[in-house]
Amino acid sequence: MAPKKAGVLGATGSVGQRFILLLSEHPDFELSVLGASSRSAGKKYGDAVTWKQTSLLPESASQVPVSECTVEAFKDCDIVFSGLDAEYAGPIEKAFVEAGLAVVSNAKNYRREADVPLIVPIVNAEHLSVVENKVKAAKAKGEKTGFIVCISNCSTAGLVAPLKPLTEKYGPIDLLTTTTLQAISGAGFSPGIPGIDILDNIVPYISGEEEKMEWETKKILGSTNQDGSKFVPLSDDEIKVSAQCNRVAVSDGHTECISLRFKNRPAPSVEEVKQTLREYVCDAFKLGCHSAPKQTIHVLEQNDRPQPRLDRDRDAGYGVSVGRIREDPVLDFKMVVLSHNTVIGAAGAGVLIAEILAAKNVI
Amino acid sequence: MAPKKAGVLGATGSVGQRFILLLSEHPDFELSVLGASSRSAGKKYGDAVTWKQTSLLPESASQVPVSECTVEAFKDCDIVFSGLDAEYAGPIEKAFVEAGLAVVSNAKNYRREADVPLIVPIVNAEHLSVVENKVKAAKAKGEKTGFIVCISNCSTAGLVAPLKPLTEKYGPIDLLTTTTLQAISGAGFSPGIPGIDILDNIVPYISGEEEKMEWETKKILGSTNQDGSKFVPLSDDEIKVSAQCNRVAVSDGHTECISLRFKNRPAPSVEEVKQTLREYVCDAFKLGCHSAPKQTIHVLEQNDRPQPRLDRDRDAGYGVSVGRIREDPVLDFKMVVLSHNTVIGAAGAGVLIAEILAAKNVI
Amino acid sequence: MAPKKAGVLGATGSVGQRFILLLSEHPDFELSVLGASSRSAGKKYGDAVTWKQTSLLPESASQVPVSECTVEAFKDCDIVFSGLDAEYAGPIEKAFVEAGLAVVSNAKNYRREADVPLIVPIVNAEHLSVVENKVKAAKAKGEKTGFIVCISNCSTAGLVAPLKPLTEKYGPIDLLTTTTLQAISGAGFSPGIPGIDILDNIVPYISGEEEKMEWETKKILGSTNQDGSKFVPLSDDEIKVSAQCNRVAVSDGHTECISLRFKNRPAPSVEEVKQTLREYVCDAFKLGCHSAPKQTIHVLEQNDRPQPRLDRDRDAGYGVSVGRIREDPVLDFKMVVLSHNTVIGAAGAGVLIAEILAAKNVI
Amino acid sequence: MAPKKAGVLGATGSVGQRFILLLSEHPDFELSVLGASSRSAGKKYGDAVTWKQTSLLPESASQVPVSECTVEAFKDCDIVFSGLDAEYAGPIEKAFVEAGLAVVSNAKNYRREADVPLIVPIVNAEHLSVVENKVKAAKAKGEKTGFIVCISNCSTAGLVAPLKPLTEKYGPIDLLTTTTLQAISGAGFSPGIPGIDILDNIVPYISGEEEKMEWETKKILGSTNQDGSKFVPLSDDEIKVSAQCNRVAVSDGHTECISLRFKNRPAPSVEEVKQTLREYVCDAFKLGCHSAPKQTIHVLEQNDRPQPRLDRDRDAGYGVSVGRIREDPVLDFKMVVLSHNTVIGAAGAGVLIAEILAAKNVI
Repeated sequence: MAPKKAGVLGATGSVGQRFILLLSEHPDFELSVLGASSRSAGKKYGDAVTWKQTSLLPESASQVPVSECTVEAFKDCDIVFSGLDAEYAGPIEKAFVEAGLAVVSNAKNYRREADVPLIVPIVNAEHLSVVENKVKAAKAKGEKTGFIVCISNCSTAGLVAPLKPLTEKYGPIDLLTTTTLQAISGAGFSPGIPGIDILDNIVPYISGEEEKMEWETKKILGSTNQDGSKFVPLSDDEIKVSAQCNRVAVSDGHTECISLRFKNRPAPSVEEVKQTLREYVCDAFKLGCHSAPKQTIHVLEQNDRPQPRLDRDRDAGYGVSVGRIREDPVLDFKMVVLSHNTVIGAAGAGVLIAEILAAKNVI
Repeated sequence: MAPKKAGVLGATGSVGQRFILLLSEHPDFELSVLGASSRSAGKKYGDAVTWKQTSLLPESASQVPVSECTVEAFKDCDIVFSGLDAEYAGPIEKAFVEAGLAVVSNAKNYRREADVPLIVPIVNAEHLSVVENKVKAAKAKGEKTGFIVCISNCSTAGLVAPLKPLTEKYGPIDLLTTTTLQAISGAGFSPGIPGIDILDNIVPYISGEEEKMEWETKKILGSTNQDGSKFVPLSDDEIKVSAQCNRVAVSDGHTECISLRFKNRPAPSVEEVKQTLREYVCDAFKLGCHSAPKQTIHVLEQNDRPQPRLDRDRDAGYGVSVGRIREDPVLDFKMVVLSHNTVIGAAGAGVLIAEILAAKNVI
Repeated sequence: MAPKKAGVLGATGSVGQRFILLLSEHPDFELSVLGASSRSAGKKYGDAVTWKQTSLLPESASQVPVSECTVEAFKDCDIVFSGLDAEYAGPIEKAFVEAGLAVVSNAKNYRREADVPLIVPIVNAEHLSVVENKVKAAKAKGEKTGFIVCISNCSTAGLVAPLKPLTEKYGPIDLLTTTTLQAISGAGFSPGIPGIDILDNIVPYISGEEEKMEWETKKILGSTNQDGSKFVPLSDDEIKVSAQCNRVAVSDGHTECISLRFKNRPAPSVEEVKQTLREYVCDAFKLGCHSAPKQTIHVLEQNDRPQPRLDRDRDAGYGVSVGRIREDPVLDFKMVVLSHNTVIGAAGAGVLIAEILAAKNVI
Repeated sequence: MAPKKAGVLGATGSVGQRFILLLSEHPDFELSVLGASSRSAGKKYGDAVTWKQTSLLPESASQVPVSECTVEAFKDCDIVFSGLDAEYAGPIEKAFVEAGLAVVSNAKNYRREADVPLIVPIVNAEHLSVVENKVKAAKAKGEKTGFIVCISNCSTAGLVAPLKPLTEKYGPIDLLTTTTLQAISGAGFSPGIPGIDILDNIVPYISGEEEKMEWETKKILGSTNQDGSKFVPLSDDEIKVSAQCNRVAVSDGHTECISLRFKNRPAPSVEEVKQTLREYVCDAFKLGCHSAPKQTIHVLEQNDRPQPRLDRDRDAGYGVSVGRIREDPVLDFKMVVLSHNTVIGAAGAGVLIAEILAAKNVI
């Protein structure tokens, strides 16, 4: 199968750079259009970007001329990945969808739209059915339709990973708390978090993050309506979610101390919880997607794990690690979840979403 | 008033060094005996110690010859501060008490004894009445009695600080969760936490810490029996406490994301909670103690505070900072608490306890 | 003596904040005008500033209304401290001097002017004679003259501290190399160094820094012309200086590994070098200046010192620490120098310069 | 060709773990014996080790039973990699050599022996001729001989990498200085550098390191005697080397600020130096060794590179990065060198040495 033509919006930013790394040697995609601000447009990508990745800028990408973020420039793309800042993403992504393009976006702008899937690809790939239905309906009419799929917030991704198999097996979780210790890469690098704020320090606040976690969790664990065209998030009565978010001196990898209560009694045992997490196989893996983790959730038994430096790269960052699963005196269980924020929580998730869309012939 | 003669057990360790810094220019105490292992005994303190404090070793302490940790060496002390490791503290502290000495200990060994006060001096100074009663009873009989007062665990100190005024005003808290981000100084330095474990990393586990926090909170917020001779901790039915402890790359200052529920309805408002915390004046301050914080609890209004680097030294580390007080979707309130672990959570607490004991003529 | 009226230009910036901290309880100065951009002007200082110091914003300063950086607003100041960015400092400082004001500036703009003293106050206070002469000549004519004194670059300050007593005693140094490990506070905080650039990393480059160190050293170790009106820096033939500058994950305190060769043979012994450094007493101390370090240079004998976290605060940051003094196989000696960049290398130096000027009746 | 049987001495230590990672999927070697202390012997490796690598412990290695470090256990190995601490390496490695085994050691014990090659495999692979000659002479007599090859100190490896092509092309370097900023992984992890010593800090001293760098450089850049049986290091008259070593808060990757002078005049230009470094191809690559870097030396043109986090993994850590090549006011040139201390400076070098030995039929 010929690789799909892929475009990247916001290509010089931190999320855009990660998209380029992941796509430049990807078997399913061909890096074809790189879009950035008009300041960069016209330059070779290698000259326009301040490359800040720990892997070298792929020579092939380096030579690509940067385009403006216009429909015209991207019109031949099979899939467009958006790493645009929220400040710019709104009208650009909208125009792309209206022009019939398929967009996978890391921006927050359309996450709450009722017909836009908000996806953690190892968790709720089935929510892509809403765009699948739309695309197939259009095809049946001989038409083409654009659509957008949103990547979840980075810290939401780690939180919901263990919840999916647990709720599937043991029914609803009605109370959920998480305290996050988030890596600085999530804040980008122009300038991102100032060094003086993070050296020998913690910043116990990330603007908008707690609200995102509390709301996105409800959509991701929620369902679709009867005709499969819209999402129905869990209500505040069904689940109460409380997040406390901190920025810490870690480069990559969000750690979360979570606590949860099941609605149904009796709750499962610690051993059952572990077993369920271990046995969980995400749909992306079943579909044979290239980037899908072989082991979706790694249940760690050493009492001082997961640790970001040691565990964030499991399954190239697509696997989530869960440790210290134990009973909680206040709710039912507490545990520590580690996920790679720039992989399963951002660009990496976007690429895996596109792999799923390709596997399902949606793109 | 002539300064009291003070001895320090474990004088070369990290807690011992802090005792020496705090005592060397203290108006109420005179550094008089420094005890360490037999390997150090006989040397001048300045030669025996690997000094690791950010303030210079006081010249006066430097010249003191190190003693062994025997009753004989400390027999003239009015107060003995113990920075001994738990491994050694048990029999030494016991012998000291039996010999009639007054001991304030940072070790965990006797914290759970029913007649031993477990004290956070800005929180439950009234619990010192148990030793006060004992000492006065002995005096009345013309006798002298030894006793031990235990300093709480460092992360417990920060947790209970806001709880005291809140429960005094609004009645019992029945559910309490805390996720800690703890500084490495709490682990000592021989070797303490290895650098490779903490650089670009988090260790989501501190041996025994969660159990200590969950239990000590119940004793500190608890009461004494009718004759004032023994402590009656809160029961598991009265309060459920859940702690998740993490070690992070911060030198000093423990940050805790806490969440709590009051038993009584209606719960107070956020503004009432803030007001109550702001107005709290600890007994140590009322007694005029030298080290007592002028402001016991600093309520911070900026949404990104408290931060360890910026706020840990308020009131020389004796004041506790509380920020981000807000409603919690799961319990009633969530907030961020910052306390200086080596001051109000260790040696500093010991010195303030001794000041209270002196103010009350117990020593 | 009534305190001198002090103004601060650039009061909301990182250097300005340090000036305010140092001046707010200073016996010789009274904080009187705080100048910032027109965006801040009119607000109370406490509302205009994003306070990022580890000490609290002094309440007195908090209430001061912020002025614009105009001569009119500062016209009654006895001394004006400038923490302006180089981008703005040029015309503003010039206007102030022309209006007869005394300016001590941390900006680089006028450092190379032939009649402007470039001062490290523990090193070349005698260079203030150039402005002293000018002021006294004006006074003799019944006039008033403005002037500017420049604070040296932060890394230059540490470098020249040990050189001064050594060249005074053993004659010229003709070869000098330094490799710096510089703290991030030197880069300010809006945004300063991004966290992602400094966590688990080194940046081996600081724009313009090496040139500044190489040139400023020659002026500071140089002399004045015959009539005492202009500075005569050392020539490239007299001394060759080579600097390599790195930014590292340290909050405060610049470490420098230096190496030097004396022109005269035989060179002194290691022990003589140490003795000379130990015995050095800076002029500021002899003048009784409030902030002058009791011990100008601390010679440390432990082989793993100085260390920034442990030694940067000696003499409140005004003392410089020198360790590992030993013979060098390539030049004569190598050693490690630690200086507090925001104290002796920036705002603190400015305050001590003003103290010297006051002690000499220049202001 | 059947893979060679490889043994690892000190398999549970930090260097040993790296050997195991590198060997477990290596095409030329088969991990066959894992030796550790008698405390670990008999256990499965996965149970004996506290695995601290960022890659997972290979399942195959996990199941290997740990042996004692005896000749008997290793007697069938084609090659033995020693990650033993210097404290234990002496007699064990000696016994192995006497028993006819081929040993590649990271320990310092035999580095200075006149007939032992001290090898940085991308620099002086030709020095392996001394053991090659010995082995071939024995073979010619129908005998077998053991030998030892020593890996250089980690910071020496980075230093000599650019010197090799430069001296080959432009003749001897007679003056050489280096100031290092060394990663903490070089200190191991039991306990290695305490966290409190490295957070917001620098330790300007590493025991024995400067002496090693100054001496090893002379052996590595030196020659062999006429019959090719012994090494003749450069003399102190031929080259003077001065090192200043610092430990900094970096996990992996040693940064060195070096400065050098050529003996011959005129010295090359900056552009010639760059060109020579770029064109250098190490012998290991010419021999087709599996791990040899495609580009031995990466000459970086951006003025703020190399940086450890961004550049240490070039060519899987086997490539060395050199940046900021410029004229030096004191010597001829200064530049910044970055090398991966656990790859080209330790276990990785050992593996590449063994690959060269295999390519030359010495093992």
